[in-house]
Amino acid sequence: MTFNLTILGSGSATPVLDRHTTAQVVTLEGDYFLIDCGEGTQYRLIENHLRPGRLKYIFISHLHGDHYFGLVPFLSSLNLSGRTDDLWLFGPRGLWEIITVQFRYSDTKLNYPLHFQETDPHQPTLLFDHPNVTVETIPLQHRIDCTGFLFREKMRKRKLIADKIPADLPVSFYRHLKDGNDILDDLGQVLYSAEDYTLPAPRPRSYAFCSDTRYNEAMFDQIRGVDLLYHEASFLDDMEALSEKYFHSTARQAALTAVQAEVGRLMIGHFSSRYKTTDEFLVQARSVFPETYLAIEGETTEI
Amino acid sequence: MTFNLTILGSGSATPVLDRHTTAQVVTLEGDYFLIDCGEGTQYRLIENHLRPGRLKYIFISHLHGDHYFGLVPFLSSLNLSGRTDDLWLFGPRGLWEIITVQFRYSDTKLNYPLHFQETDPHQPTLLFDHPNVTVETIPLQHRIDCTGFLFREKMRKRKLIADKIPADLPVSFYRHLKDGNDILDDLGQVLYSAEDYTLPAPRPRSYAFCSDTRYNEAMFDQIRGVDLLYHEASFLDDMEALSEKYFHSTARQAALTAVQAEVGRLMIGHFSSRYKTTDEFLVQARSVFPETYLAIEGETTEI
Repeated sequence: MTFNLTILGSGSATPVLDRHTTAQVVTLEGDYFLIDCGEGTQYRLIENHLRPGRLKYIFISHLHGDHYFGLVPFLSSLNLSGRTDDLWLFGPRGLWEIITVQFRYSDTKLNYPLHFQETDPHQPTLLFDHPNVTVETIPLQHRIDCTGFLFREKMRKRKLIADKIPADLPVSFYRHLKDGNDILDDLGQVLYSAEDYTLPAPRPRSYAFCSDTRYNEAMFDQIRGVDLLYHEASFLDDMEALSEKYFHSTARQAALTAVQAEVGRLMIGHFSSRYKTTDEFLVQARSVFPETYLAIEGETTEI
Repeated sequence: MTFNLTILGSGSATPVLDRHTTAQVVTLEGDYFLIDCGEGTQYRLIENHLRPGRLKYIFISHLHGDHYFGLVPFLSSLNLSGRTDDLWLFGPRGLWEIITVQFRYSDTKLNYPLHFQETDPHQPTLLFDHPNVTVETIPLQHRIDCTGFLFREKMRKRKLIADKIPADLPVSFYRHLKDGNDILDDLGQVLYSAEDYTLPAPRPRSYAFCSDTRYNEAMFDQIRGVDLLYHEASFLDDMEALSEKYFHSTARQAALTAVQAEVGRLMIGHFSSRYKTTDEFLVQARSVFPETYLAIEGETTEI
């Protein structure tokens, strides 16, 4: 099953031409999940050949503009394009008011059902139970209410070993085996053991999105062991005091988080525009956690 | 005195990669006036080397998103950049609420004074009296309240003919002559006639911005004789019925307006994304009004 992350924006709030504001797409099989939606995100989707109409779920971390200014434009464009499919939106208190006031004055009636669920910034909450994945909020420490999002792939069924399956085994028994149950005879003896006829399900993968936040020990237990952690790294060591003041993190603090939470890989982004290049972010983070990578716009990573 | 128009967006609402949504900058000497502010306008300003900090006046025609979605992002970025200069904003009822609700939830305190004046969509109104120009609203006929903007350069003073001015003429008399007043002796006889020592002031120029609107005879008298008319032309003849339904205009109707209002030149824009090229817009408009030009992004026109 594909479980990928595509970066649409790696920059922070100050506008520059070579980095866009935050937006990412998680693709899980055929489903697209949009995380944050900075100004112009709809154009990034088009540029990256991600068909906007396939998006079903949108998650907004907080109401600083570089994380949501592209949302109402995107919702409007979906309407113009004739969308009728349901769309689910998860975000902070206030987001619904921001949307509805604009639609009221533009006299916009959506042709598609838009479902909104408010996030709780104070405690981890199961937000969404999808057939293939669950999404939990991660409380972050920022200047205003802010949550990250934790995607946990669900345990899948065991896989039948096609060559071993006896030709006369009724198809209705396949499901038993894939569920890990043995097939017994009338006396309760094992006829076909799940162990023999199936392979274990692949290990479920997980992705944690954490932006924007101060170095935040409170979340370590929740994100422990995720395969991929995206963590903001707005600043380098030289700006640690400023970073602290604005409730942001340095590359080194993102890497420390990755170490403490024992994650598989770390991706850093949300780079301040005061840095013209990002090489030093990688240097400082890798000195603490070698498996660090830069968020690069247009690039897709397997989770 | 420079009096120029720079086009930042020539497209309509549906997002496409090769045309941006509506935004224009009028430059009058050192002053910048922004008209409409579609999504991403702040990036267009940077691309066109128009320093955002120099903008003092913003005019928003109406609250369809392709004309204002870039405004709150732009106001936010001005704040991040440390602006302290006053900024004047003119726009429809509701715009202030849209701005303030977003600043409230993002906990944004502006460091610069932002002055808002609501436009009246029902009758032409003098909106702004600047030392070099006046700006009036033009009531348009759209699906929601919408105004155009009419920029009229003020009559300037006559120009001294330096070579002719007697060396012993007190400098304090220059202003009299430039105002067109003769300088008299004690007996009331003309010593220096303004006619002889000055050249007439250049004819004041004018620019009318009209987007979005149905073919709108009601505005002909108001915009009669302007040097440059920008008029939306969302559609070609093939879509005239649709155009009428959505309160838009065809290229031909824009040109008919130019003829009826006896303007100097016509610029058309707001092209629907269903047209991949714009050549035919020019053909259809010029068949009615030869002095028609296309709005082209990044191009600057003298008014």
